[in-house]
Amino acid sequence: MPHVRILIRPKAGILDPQGTAVEQALPQLGFGGASNVRIGRLVELDVENTDELEAMCEKLLVNPLVEDYEIQTDVPAAS
Amino acid sequence: MPHVRILIRPKAGILDPQGTAVEQALPQLGFGGASNVRIGRLVELDVENTDELEAMCEKLLVNPLVEDYEIQTDVPAAS
Repeated sequence: MPHVRILIRPKAGILDPQGTAVEQALPQLGFGGASNVRIGRLVELDVENTDELEAMCEKLLVNPLVEDYEIQTDVPAAS
Repeated sequence: MPHVRILIRPKAGILDPQGTAVEQALPQLGFGGASNVRIGRLVELDVENTDELEAMCEKLLVNPLVEDYEIQTDVPAAS
């Protein structure tokens, strides 16, 4: 059964408070030079029919108002 | 500045209630054949020094007790 990965990110222009928090925390921990931090969600699953993935995203996994998604179908099975 | 991606997932064997909820919801929406659903986090950022990424993960981004992470340094910039 194919193992697939769905990357879900806040849309460009949509506020990402989690990302902002990380971006502000990094310098305080001594890590300079990080920018454009965006935090999203990662969904990995085994699925019989990869044709259904887009519909799964639209109906359950992604909030299309504020999130974009990217489907990767050729990922190795999780270790 | 390199654009990098960090995939953060619940460790194997660690309970993933979000993943379980999705796995149970999918058949109710008419999607059969999905299994091993795991939900994690996706961090994308621009960083000057990719050598620091591992330390960033260990110190801020990842909870090493319950999460594994994978760093991808050669990703195209977000659209």
